[in-house]
Amino acid sequence: MQLYGYWRSSATYRVRIALSLKNISYQSIEINLIEKGGEQHSDYFHALNPTELVPVLVDGGLRINQSMVILDYLDEHYPQPLLVPITGEQRYLIRSLAQDIAVDIHPLNNLRVQQFLTHQMKVKECDKQKWLKYWIMEGFESLDEKLKPLAGKFCVGADVTLVDVCLAPQVYNALRVGVDMTKYPTLNRVYQTLMQHPAFIAAQPENQTGAPTN
Amino acid sequence: MQLYGYWRSSATYRVRIALSLKNISYQSIEINLIEKGGEQHSDYFHALNPTELVPVLVDGGLRINQSMVILDYLDEHYPQPLLVPITGEQRYLIRSLAQDIAVDIHPLNNLRVQQFLTHQMKVKECDKQKWLKYWIMEGFESLDEKLKPLAGKFCVGADVTLVDVCLAPQVYNALRVGVDMTKYPTLNRVYQTLMQHPAFIAAQPENQTGAPTN
Repeated sequence: MQLYGYWRSSATYRVRIALSLKNISYQSIEINLIEKGGEQHSDYFHALNPTELVPVLVDGGLRINQSMVILDYLDEHYPQPLLVPITGEQRYLIRSLAQDIAVDIHPLNNLRVQQFLTHQMKVKECDKQKWLKYWIMEGFESLDEKLKPLAGKFCVGADVTLVDVCLAPQVYNALRVGVDMTKYPTLNRVYQTLMQHPAFIAAQPENQTGAPTN
Repeated sequence: MQLYGYWRSSATYRVRIALSLKNISYQSIEINLIEKGGEQHSDYFHALNPTELVPVLVDGGLRINQSMVILDYLDEHYPQPLLVPITGEQRYLIRSLAQDIAVDIHPLNNLRVQQFLTHQMKVKECDKQKWLKYWIMEGFESLDEKLKPLAGKFCVGADVTLVDVCLAPQVYNALRVGVDMTKYPTLNRVYQTLMQHPAFIAAQPENQTGAPTN
């Protein structure tokens, strides 16, 4: 199994967490999104995913380019531990909460969006920062409200689920742009717990090849 | 079953198509996103979905607020016709192509994003239009490339799949902002076919209660 991704890409970070939780060995192939205009735009990577976004997972003849679909694939083929229950109401609840992050927050703050705001829309740096913080805070406010009655040790109950897999990278981004996580006590508490979990530690951006060492 | 949505919301449009294809009867409850500052921000709707976005599907005690999860739920409980194969490589291919639209294009052009660009970022109307067109064209270019070798009568082969369910509302949005669909011959051809399909016609925004009659 090969994972094409970037150390700081939060969609790649999600997949690394799942691989780590499921104890699946894989080859990590770095696509540098920053240097030389971005390797995601190379002919080599375009052939893997014409959308020119990471991550891409290759498993034998199978190639998947959407992180949430990669997570589904892993859960359906490597069910130990399951991240989403196979049946029941919690199946849809957990998937919805995960997409509240992966669909309603993350796409708005992706690297290409930041680049478009700066280079095409000529938005000032302070306004770009306002944009980045706004969408995370907007999303975290309702997510914290939703998780308050559901959370145990983790986002939903006592076990790690798909929601935690999506939450950790989004909080990582939030901290980078200076969001005050104490405004979201449930998210903040769970995040602190996740950052003690060996699988999450192994998947952290700073622990990947390609991350700056300083 | 109750569907809370808005006639012009393209995420709601997706769900209507699936309900229509599967011949499921349901009650449509309009949440007017425009008038009086937007009914999605009312206490009444906030209680249904604190994220204050449509659609929300209620089926007995189950409540789902993400359109892609609603589509999963419908496919898993009302499998005639199936929109995503239950197993095999096509399962992940179809889900990825659907998310290329639902994750990589649509969230960037949602109503709340347009409102934020105008009111908070003070972006000019012409720049907002540039933004809207850019993300659709960027996404459609790679999607057309991906679908060219896969398409039959529909996006993937001879049967309607989840990709078609996501494509039709996104093309509807594209046409609203003046995207030239002839640049995307495969998408354009499939869209013309979908617009002849009774289930897609029944789900069209203009055929819903709440749409202007003129």
